[in-house]
Amino acid sequence: MGTEANGSAADGTPDPRRLARVLAEDGVRLVVDPALSDALVRELAAVTGLTPTRDPASGPGPAVHVGPTLPAALREGDALLWAHSTNAGVDALLRPGWPPHALLTRTVGRMGERIAQYVLAWVLADCQRIPDVLADHRARTWERRQGELLDGTHAVVFGTGAIGSAVAAALQRLGVRTTGVARTPRDTPGFDLVIALADAPAALPGARWVVNALPLTPDTRALFAAPLLTAMDGATFVNVGRGESVDLDALRTALTTGHVARAVLDVLPTEPAPPHAPAWDLPRTVITSHSAGVTTDTDIATDFRAAWQQTTEGRLPNLAVRVGAGY
Amino acid sequence: MGTEANGSAADGTPDPRRLARVLAEDGVRLVVDPALSDALVRELAAVTGLTPTRDPASGPGPAVHVGPTLPAALREGDALLWAHSTNAGVDALLRPGWPPHALLTRTVGRMGERIAQYVLAWVLADCQRIPDVLADHRARTWERRQGELLDGTHAVVFGTGAIGSAVAAALQRLGVRTTGVARTPRDTPGFDLVIALADAPAALPGARWVVNALPLTPDTRALFAAPLLTAMDGATFVNVGRGESVDLDALRTALTTGHVARAVLDVLPTEPAPPHAPAWDLPRTVITSHSAGVTTDTDIATDFRAAWQQTTEGRLPNLAVRVGAGY
Repeated sequence: MGTEANGSAADGTPDPRRLARVLAEDGVRLVVDPALSDALVRELAAVTGLTPTRDPASGPGPAVHVGPTLPAALREGDALLWAHSTNAGVDALLRPGWPPHALLTRTVGRMGERIAQYVLAWVLADCQRIPDVLADHRARTWERRQGELLDGTHAVVFGTGAIGSAVAAALQRLGVRTTGVARTPRDTPGFDLVIALADAPAALPGARWVVNALPLTPDTRALFAAPLLTAMDGATFVNVGRGESVDLDALRTALTTGHVARAVLDVLPTEPAPPHAPAWDLPRTVITSHSAGVTTDTDIATDFRAAWQQTTEGRLPNLAVRVGAGY
Repeated sequence: MGTEANGSAADGTPDPRRLARVLAEDGVRLVVDPALSDALVRELAAVTGLTPTRDPASGPGPAVHVGPTLPAALREGDALLWAHSTNAGVDALLRPGWPPHALLTRTVGRMGERIAQYVLAWVLADCQRIPDVLADHRARTWERRQGELLDGTHAVVFGTGAIGSAVAAALQRLGVRTTGVARTPRDTPGFDLVIALADAPAALPGARWVVNALPLTPDTRALFAAPLLTAMDGATFVNVGRGESVDLDALRTALTTGHVARAVLDVLPTEPAPPHAPAWDLPRTVITSHSAGVTTDTDIATDFRAAWQQTTEGRLPNLAVRVGAGY
């Protein structure tokens, strides 16, 4: 990989050897988001040996930032060496334009495991009709409801990265046939089959479950609109990706016509959703308030520590975001 | 096994060779419960080659009965050769006294799989706080709730038969440590450890999940009363056995003191529970109206066919109930 004079490779990836050299010099600032817990900030200080500050304008020197977003003071100029996202999704960091040559890493933590268990819980809740059973209980009504067995059903999972793959593996272990949808189809653990997006409409009619685990990129914005939603035939749709990937008006129509049987939405275009948001009124839908893959302080500290070690050794961290691709 | 003159072994088990001889003679009646579907009755007629009747007093001849209970006309006298229970639980059949020398078989079907999936669904619903999330949704409240990972938690399952073992295996596959409680502890698939009932109180404090999958017998009636319930320390208690195994007043106390964190009750002492039943008001409890292991017509026909084949070949069916033990 050729390195240009400005210290970044031709594809915009920062040069890890240059980054390691700068990090070893004096005067590097560790800037942390004001919302991070004191315990986590102490942990980050211990990993780096730097004195943390919550003030992004604390000085002109080169900076490492840890937080869910990037303050304006670090977005401009070339002080930012590296930002570590405390979330797995980085679209909010990238959206206003990413400072050239800065490294971006993200927290994945046990996100795949957490989101897989969330999906499994809601899929099984659907099989056992848990929302209906809870309503029966509130009405003090004894109503036998035959559960549906997961075994032998079919799931189509959009996204075959760490999260989509963990979701698929969890379903596959319970006898679900899993089809992945990827930009570049290749054999992936957890999936019986991986297909290209263009082939997804043909796979959707037989799907009992459709899961969106895609990051938000220009390609995935409003991906779940009429063409894909009306290709479904009674599937339960679970969105653990990003809210902006779903056209909520089209989803409302698909829920009304029955193309989508139920929806479980962890994410919405506007978060937090205000009480008057129309999404709360979607038929047969549960909104779960972006709870599927909450990262813990331990997740953040563990992933930052691994990225710090790789970066200071002059290697590109495994958790580095390909800024051009958006994930 | 010695056979007595009356055609049954010393332990009360019917003599399968004698039963095969009688079944091969003319005049055997196939008596079916009035509630069985026409499709199922046609299936039973096809299996046996007999003309089915819904009238238990249709004649004096030897009878094979299929249904959830046993009509009084067949409970008296010695016409009953064999009753096949359309349920897995047979306490309702045995309770008024079982006619000596009659064979009792039961439907297990995919019961283990169904009940295991029910337990998994409610355990995961607890991890994801699904009842709270649904209440948030009804209140149009955006409330992030960190889910709990199942991995590494501990379950104590009372009953290590087909159902308890299937429940344990499902939990174990998701990383749960499983302890079984059995009358006679022995290595059993799905369990990391099997202990005797006397050792259960010592195992309960560390349990996140306690599942009752025991049949109703004199030994298990009101088993879950103060001593066992107060040995728990914040466990979620799931009852997929029989309602009479739980002292509901003691459960209410344990839910109030926090020894039991939540309860999921598929079964109650009185079913169906009327709207005024106090069980509906137990704190942090869900009642699921005996839905965990609903048997289908396919389950009944499949299990009856297997039992018919073994019986007519002079063998004791795998699904035969040990009447003395009660399961």
